[in-house]
Order: sequence, then C-alpha cells, then structure tokens
Amino acid sequence: MTKPSSITIADLGEHRLLRMVRGWFGTGGTDAAPIELGIGDDAAVVRTSPRTIVTTDALVENVHFRRHTIAPRDLGHKALAVNVSDLAAMAARPLAAFLALSVPPQTPVADLRAFFLGLRAAARTFGCPLAGGDLTRAPHWMLTITVLGTPLGRRVALRSAARPGDYLYLTGWPGESGAGLEALERKLAVSPKLLRRHRRPMPRLAEAAQLAKISPRLAMLDVSDGVWNDACQLAESSGVHVALRAADLPCSPLLARRVRGTGRAPLEYILFGGEDYELLCASPLAPAVMRAKYGALPGLAPLHPIGRIMPGHGVALYDAAGRRLPVRDRTFTHFKP
Amino acid sequence: MTKPSSITIADLGEHRLLRMVRGWFGTGGTDAAPIELGIGDDAAVVRTSPRTIVTTDALVENVHFRRHTIAPRDLGHKALAVNVSDLAAMAARPLAAFLALSVPPQTPVADLRAFFLGLRAAARTFGCPLAGGDLTRAPHWMLTITVLGTPLGRRVALRSAARPGDYLYLTGWPGESGAGLEALERKLAVSPKLLRRHRRPMPRLAEAAQLAKISPRLAMLDVSDGVWNDACQLAESSGVHVALRAADLPCSPLLARRVRGTGRAPLEYILFGGEDYELLCASPLAPAVMRAKYGALPGLAPLHPIGRIMPGHGVALYDAAGRRLPVRDRTFTHFKP
Repeated sequence: MTKPSSITIADLGEHRLLRMVRGWFGTGGTDAAPIELGIGDDAAVVRTSPRTIVTTDALVENVHFRRHTIAPRDLGHKALAVNVSDLAAMAARPLAAFLALSVPPQTPVADLRAFFLGLRAAARTFGCPLAGGDLTRAPHWMLTITVLGTPLGRRVALRSAARPGDYLYLTGWPGESGAGLEALERKLAVSPKLLRRHRRPMPRLAEAAQLAKISPRLAMLDVSDGVWNDACQLAESSGVHVALRAADLPCSPLLARRVRGTGRAPLEYILFGGEDYELLCASPLAPAVMRAKYGALPGLAPLHPIGRIMPGHGVALYDAAGRRLPVRDRTFTHFKP
Repeated sequence: MTKPSSITIADLGEHRLLRMVRGWFGTGGTDAAPIELGIGDDAAVVRTSPRTIVTTDALVENVHFRRHTIAPRDLGHKALAVNVSDLAAMAARPLAAFLALSVPPQTPVADLRAFFLGLRAAARTFGCPLAGGDLTRAPHWMLTITVLGTPLGRRVALRSAARPGDYLYLTGWPGESGAGLEALERKLAVSPKLLRRHRRPMPRLAEAAQLAKISPRLAMLDVSDGVWNDACQLAESSGVHVALRAADLPCSPLLARRVRGTGRAPLEYILFGGEDYELLCASPLAPAVMRAKYGALPGLAPLHPIGRIMPGHGVALYDAAGRRLPVRDRTFTHFKP
C-alpha cells in the first residue's frame, strides 16, 4: 500500500486534484467580501473602485527559490507577500489574488497542500483572498501571482514623485533576508528569526497606509533587490540624485550578530541583499516632523531617515563628512550581459 | 562579429533588455484609455467599473505548446487570445492585460521581439492593451497572462445559469484547431487556414456581446478543451443534463476536407480537439427566434443550435432518432490518474 505522504498529484488525476484544490481555496478564500464570483467559472468577478492597482510577479524554481531553502508552506506565504508588497509600495491595499501554478506530476499531494495552506494563511493575514487561478503541469515549480488592489488614500505613491530637497526614509531592517538566505544556502546555524525574515516576509501595509496619510507628497517603492538597486530605480524614475548616508543605514542587532567575525560588512547585505520587502520612500517631511507623525500610530516598523534627494541623477553613498564612498554594484540580474 | 539574428537576450543584459521590452510595449500598449499608469512602477493603475472580471492562464512550453508548431509571433497572439476568450465567455470585454514571461537566457532577441509584436497586434485587435508584467529567466518558455475586463451588459454569463428546457448553441467551427495542430505535429500538407485556426484563434467578443444583448438569460463558456469536456463543465456547474445532437454538430468544409479518406470522423475533432475558443451557450431562446435576433447583426460567426438542456446530469450524444450514442472521453488532462 502507498503511504499517504508519498501520494503524488499524478496518482489523483486532474478531477480529484482540482476538487481538493477548490477545498483548500474555499475556506479562506472566495467567501471574502470583494469577491463576487470566485474559482470555478471562466473568470472571477471582483468588486472594484474606479482605480484598480494591479501587480504581477513570477517565481521560478531554481531562479527565485530552491526547494531545499524554502518549504512549500513558506513558499505559499512568500509568493503572496511579494505581490502584496508591490501594492503597499503604491500606497494601496489588496482586494484579491490570482494564482497560476505549474508543478511536476510527481509532486507529493502533501507538498501542494502545504503550499496552499501557506498561501491561504497569508491571504487572511494580508486581507487578500484568492479569487481564481490556473493549475498546469511543468518540469519544475513555477508560479505567477497577480494581485488587484485599491488605493489606501486619494493618491497612489509613484516612484517618479521624488523631488530635490525631499528626505529619504526606509522602514524596518533591510539585509536580514539576504543574510538569512546566505545562512540557508551555506547551512549555517543562525537565529530562526533571520531565516524567517527570508522565508516569511511581511509586506509593510500598515506602514504604507500611515505614510500615505501623513505625507503631503510621497514617492515610494518596495526594496526587493537591495536598497542600492531600488534607490537607483527611484533616482531614474524621478530624475533626481539619491544621496545615501552610510552611517544612517539601519543595521539590525540580528544582522550585526550574524556578520560579527565574518569579515563582511552589514552594508553589503543592506545594499545588495535583496528580498527585504521594506519600503523606501521620499517625502518633503523633515525627520523631526516625520518622527512625530509616523510614530503617532503604535506598532509600526521603525522608519529610518537615511538620506536626501538632490538635483542630478544616480545614487551615491556618503560618509558623515559628506565624502562619496566607493560602491561596487552587486545587484542580482536575470540576464547578465 | 555576431549576426543580429543570433544575438541572445543574455548578450544584451537586463537593463538594455528591459528598455527594449518597454519600447515594444509602448506604442500599442500603455497609452490606451483604461490604463492610467502602465509599465515601470511597482504596479499599474487601471480605470475600472464597480465589477471587474479577471482571468489568468499559464502557457508552458512542451505542455501547452511546442516551439516547432508555433512561431513566437503566433504565440504572442494566442497567449492573449485564450485569456480574452475567457472574458468573452463571461460576456465581458477586456480592459488591460498583464504578462509574466519567463525565457531561457539563450533566447534570440529576434524571437522575443516577434513574441511582443504578435502580442501587441493582438492587443490592438482585441482592445486589450498590455499594462504591466514581469520578465524573468527560466529553463524554457513559460508565460502567464492575466486580463481584467468589464461586463458587456448588466449581467455576466455564468456556467451555472443553464436551466432544463434551454437550447444549446455553439459558435463557428470547432474541431478545426485540433485538426490544424495534428497536421502540424505530423507535418502534413494542409490548408494554411486550418493552421491559422490553431495558431491564431480569435476570441468571439462580438458574438458574446450580441448573445448577452438578446438573450434574457445566458449560460456560457468558451470551448478550450473540446465541446465534450466543456459541455460536461456546463452540466456540472448548472446541475443539468446536456443533450448533444450528433447530426447538428457543425462540421466545417475545411474540417470535412481534412478528414476525408483518413478513416477518422469529424466528430472526434469537434468533441475532443480542443483550443477552438468558440462559445458554447444555453439560452431560453428557441432556434427560430435566436436566428432572427442573432442574425440581425451582420459579420458574426454562425451560431448553431446543437442540443437541449434537460433535467439530470452529465452529457450524452444522441442520434436523429433520439438514441444515445457511445462516446469514449478523450479530453486532454494535465494530471492523469
């Protein structure tokens, strides 16, 4: 007799499989408020406002993740989190998510179930129910999630809205996710918190809402490929120079402990680590005003003033005396020249 | 010196590649009316009505298509067409499309360009501009398209709306696409029209609009996996029996010519061919009334009365005397038990 844990989705066949998947969707999913019609028809029907914010992201096995560094349950969480983070970066909140999932026929049913349970739990946490999708086979895991959202305030926060004179802010603790991934790949014994930061990123929805509420103008993006690369995106989109102050880039106690004695600088992880899903934003509010207004809402991730927006172009890192520090760009790219 | 035709996307590097892709998107794409903000930020902004219809479909190389049976330009067309067809089946028209595309680094730039040109031309034809996306690498081609749409009339057409007594209708010429694919796979010399039906399916948007307008109630779906399977979906969703009349299933002259002398019946292609993207619908309008009302708008694909909706469940095929004919289900499935 086959052990339950070793049943694959090919053993079930498409019909039984789809019924199971619908069951996993059901409870946390299509009964949610903005979804008028969920999984099961040619398309879903979502209740929307006059402006709908839409983002789509693909995760490919062995490109974006490896099965030995992330469990299916964490993958389900993370796949949704990275898309919801894109909405947060626009100062929008999620309405509904759509999943196109491709997996090999020999995938254990238990893995698929764990993936969906992770996704469903994340959907509840972020208020972003699954409304539909597509399940196909492929030689490896591959998933694309599209999320529809609605603006948190009257305006969305664009990358192109930064102006010279603005102050640059960063939420939370960038670099921890990159350090977590490195520990996983090298099988190092580190704090589970560090691994969790890589496997279960939390989109900064509440922080985005507060920033959109208090800042008269806001340019924002989420830090997915390291602070350096996303600062470059901000500079390019807004046509400005982004001046980062090295001493003000926030090094968390976790990251500091991790790099101690390794000969590596926390800054490497912060600038080039990637997958932090913190928010990087530019606002005309000066740090003292920002601190008072932002801090008025308890429970948010800390907001660090880390630089200024200036006339010009590109990004540079400065020391406390205002001298430009050398930086070698180590951002991950999909297609290297 | 490298010949232009042999330049791969890895030769370009990610930055130049993304600039090129934005250029290909631009002209036909993000300047379109419902798109307030297109490619380039964390997410796009689409102007929507109170109900947004959303569908997502993945196409995987060697599962849904093979590179030797479809050129990149046709693939671009088809990938969008199959999603827009899902909207048509809901009695909705498209607003904007989102693309997650994964390709190997050694992909020729010329192939990627051809894909985008095919997609852009289809976007113009269907009134469905590209509003955003994601480009990553993968070991093979893989694409997921998500399309947002808006209802054509006051109601959307659900699969669950068929009632006993309804008449069953089918648009156009099912089976041609399946016969075209077979000819491509076996390298048979056939009419280019037949190949085109496989490579460049046309979603039945105008037909859906007319059906939604004239029919007081309408259950509808698009025929993607053969008439048999989609009739089964209709039966299951509506809780009814679908009675197909074998003699009334429309065999096009093209299909008739193709099967002549092969010993195969046109019915095999019609019932199990797949990828037709015709509309299958149930309406209380009797054929004579339907013919008069539907035919009032010229230029539409023909609409064939092919059966009735009855109390019960499942699908059956009947001869002219009302006798049930034996049918062996040959629908393609992703995960066979």
